[in-house]
Amino acid sequence: MKTLVTGAAGFIGSSLVDRLLADGNSVVGVDNFSTGCRQFLDQALRNDRFKLYEKDLLDPAALQGVLTPDIEWVFHLAANADVRHGLEHPRMDLEQNTLVTWNILETMRRVGALRIAFSSTGSVYGEAPVIPTPENCPFPVQTSLYGASKLAGESLISAYAEGYHFRALIFRFVSILGERYTHGHVFDFVRQLQTDPSRLAVLGNGKQKKSYLYIGDCIEAILAAVRQETGLPAEVYNLGTDEYVQVDDSIREICQEMNVQPRLEYSGGDRGWVGDSPFIFLDCSKIRKLGWRPQKFIREGVRLTVRYLRANRWVFEAREKEHAS
Amino acid sequence: MKTLVTGAAGFIGSSLVDRLLADGNSVVGVDNFSTGCRQFLDQALRNDRFKLYEKDLLDPAALQGVLTPDIEWVFHLAANADVRHGLEHPRMDLEQNTLVTWNILETMRRVGALRIAFSSTGSVYGEAPVIPTPENCPFPVQTSLYGASKLAGESLISAYAEGYHFRALIFRFVSILGERYTHGHVFDFVRQLQTDPSRLAVLGNGKQKKSYLYIGDCIEAILAAVRQETGLPAEVYNLGTDEYVQVDDSIREICQEMNVQPRLEYSGGDRGWVGDSPFIFLDCSKIRKLGWRPQKFIREGVRLTVRYLRANRWVFEAREKEHAS
Repeated sequence: MKTLVTGAAGFIGSSLVDRLLADGNSVVGVDNFSTGCRQFLDQALRNDRFKLYEKDLLDPAALQGVLTPDIEWVFHLAANADVRHGLEHPRMDLEQNTLVTWNILETMRRVGALRIAFSSTGSVYGEAPVIPTPENCPFPVQTSLYGASKLAGESLISAYAEGYHFRALIFRFVSILGERYTHGHVFDFVRQLQTDPSRLAVLGNGKQKKSYLYIGDCIEAILAAVRQETGLPAEVYNLGTDEYVQVDDSIREICQEMNVQPRLEYSGGDRGWVGDSPFIFLDCSKIRKLGWRPQKFIREGVRLTVRYLRANRWVFEAREKEHAS
Repeated sequence: MKTLVTGAAGFIGSSLVDRLLADGNSVVGVDNFSTGCRQFLDQALRNDRFKLYEKDLLDPAALQGVLTPDIEWVFHLAANADVRHGLEHPRMDLEQNTLVTWNILETMRRVGALRIAFSSTGSVYGEAPVIPTPENCPFPVQTSLYGASKLAGESLISAYAEGYHFRALIFRFVSILGERYTHGHVFDFVRQLQTDPSRLAVLGNGKQKKSYLYIGDCIEAILAAVRQETGLPAEVYNLGTDEYVQVDDSIREICQEMNVQPRLEYSGGDRGWVGDSPFIFLDCSKIRKLGWRPQKFIREGVRLTVRYLRANRWVFEAREKEHAS
């Protein structure tokens, strides 16, 4: 089938591109390269079935001629994923996660390409009153601009699905890690320890619980849902594992893998930053009913991530350049 | 206290303005007069404590110098309330209900005026799985662009409240009626019957259940919540009555009040239009815990509305002009 992937040069986007191509599909990739890495697409760019466009999706006309009626699925993964610094740039999440989503939906509607898969987040549950949190947990109150902007994206998608006969899949991710992972706890810790293995600064008290999903398992889950026809215009699926770790557990795995024994310097408090959820742990029984289940434990995922980062030090330099620009 | 009311020339906005002035407050009113009626503010404009600005809130700078640090409460009522035609103008709800809300929040944050009351809607419950629907019902999937845009507004407000120490009140209204009511079922029916009392076209099968709240009760509820200090950054309250009527019941009240016996011509189906909820009926026990309770039954509200409309035929002409422009 012919597909379009936004955020194609990102961590999850490029992994999905590679997998779609490996399965024999055609892929149109779109990225603005604000955080995407061209190197992630090295292999894809050698494939005739892949076409890459550098576009800023905030421009409503960006997908004109790119999003064509023969596109069977739009995988909308482009996003601002910098949850932590949302409060310093209060318009960024709105633009990148809400307005960009509307632009894509509107182009899809005009063109008549009506299937969309969307990467949302467990952050939409705010301070979840039920843990593990199912998709139909009590209506949450938003606590972060990131979660708010993603819920707005979800809401637009499901309203378009209902009103204009789209078929929509919405995935609420826990944090994803694995090869090409370039932001978040594990990345920050590895970077710090590469610079100075004698100490590690940790936001919060190290007790924050986190659930991670391995990138390969994430891609499998998305494709499992795409293969499944359901009667509803919009289906929402949590994506995560049935286990969680504490930040201290990740640190232990990382230190063992890197063979370092740093002094741990905690900033204290039960959350890393204002708006950080102390615990995102999702009930994933709905997606499991499709036959999918994760193949990697969180600790394996952390180890694989550390190995990838140590073998690909250029990703740190790429990140530095991006922050400097 | 000093207050700011957006949508000050609207049905609910102007009623709130009058009440705030009657209580001795100062009011800064803002309206773009896209649907507002200047006549609704005739009385307010004779009051020294009222100041009116004609501003388009889609302009991020609209409230510069208008929203001042001494404003204790911002009552954000400006909105696109045309639920029914959302699908014909898919950007309108996004702009008027989401982007305008962000513009206001951002101005409030910069200025340091941090209390906001927001008019949301029972439409955010989509096809509510629990009826009567409490605020913490299962996480709904959006079914209308209107509901989606209002939920996005709510989400931005609660994220700002959490992140920037706002105090926020979010009200999920059922349909409101009473004096100055100028859109919706009752308005359409009265207009039709004034033109031709022999027939009445009804969208749907007349069995749709609707819950209405009388404008006076709505204003009382908002002010009851404002007076109540709670520890949470954002509080969500349903606003409605403990009863509902079917569209046919409203029609009967209207016809009796107007003394007409039209032939009823139903378009059929269990909802008026795509995205129309077959039944919005809210559990309002949370707001009732503040000591508030509605003083008018729905039927009294319908009758008062009909009397107002028949005594103020100019509102129909004002509506016509607006649609023509």
